[in-house]
Amino acid sequence: MCESNRRSLPGTIARVRIYFAASIRGGRSDEHIYRELIDYLSSFGTVLTEHIAHPDDAERGLSDEEIYRRDLEWLHSADVVVAEVTTPSLGVGYELATAEHLGKSTLCLFRPQSGGSLSAMVAGAPGQTVADYVTVEDARRIVRAFLSEHERA
Amino acid sequence: MCESNRRSLPGTIARVRIYFAASIRGGRSDEHIYRELIDYLSSFGTVLTEHIAHPDDAERGLSDEEIYRRDLEWLHSADVVVAEVTTPSLGVGYELATAEHLGKSTLCLFRPQSGGSLSAMVAGAPGQTVADYVTVEDARRIVRAFLSEHERA
Repeated sequence: MCESNRRSLPGTIARVRIYFAASIRGGRSDEHIYRELIDYLSSFGTVLTEHIAHPDDAERGLSDEEIYRRDLEWLHSADVVVAEVTTPSLGVGYELATAEHLGKSTLCLFRPQSGGSLSAMVAGAPGQTVADYVTVEDARRIVRAFLSEHERA
Repeated sequence: MCESNRRSLPGTIARVRIYFAASIRGGRSDEHIYRELIDYLSSFGTVLTEHIAHPDDAERGLSDEEIYRRDLEWLHSADVVVAEVTTPSLGVGYELATAEHLGKSTLCLFRPQSGGSLSAMVAGAPGQTVADYVTVEDARRIVRAFLSEHERA
């Protein structure tokens, strides 16, 4: 479906530039969930960071400084940020605070059944929208509601 | 040694307000290192976040929103931020980006022998000072050099 068609259909969401954030070096045990979320997000617009589904291939040969500059440019250009925050990640925390500083809407998806606890610096931040989920289907519903809300804002 | 004495001795560092950041909910396997670093940092000034040595006691009964507000106030009032970043932590990443936004000097201490890899969003950030260490004694030397540098700036 092309962009103009999407916009014209009732109930659809205008195509957005989405910065998807998730653990890369912090741990990859939820990689399959990241892939499913990226697939779903792609139906609403451009996922700037779709390489998070396969970071080893995408970042081979890039220095840390190059990765930082690329990701920061994407963050500046994004309309919204969606983060999967179940696996603790220094980079995701850095990105969420930077997004907040840039005035971007953020959605943090957390899976309590992992057994972990979400950081109070994110769970308690008034600038962050945090939602718990159990299944990827739940997460999809939450994402859809968040993007609809963003469009209305 | 009282504050005025410290300031008057050659080779000492003026007392500073230090925000120490380290993983709390992300994992506590380096807790003994955090304690040793907090002890050492205390010899230079006030460690606002000394509760990181024993967060369960210090944060019992506080909501995430209360923890967030308290930590953000401390971050605003800090002269410098010293973070132990070996265990990935969403909160520490959030604090480092916020500190950078507030114009604070930050030092990130990373132990490569943990087997982990530091996030490119921190390792590649021009606004972050990152130093690898092996032993706590190394870390102490790095901290001392950083605080001396901060005092001269």
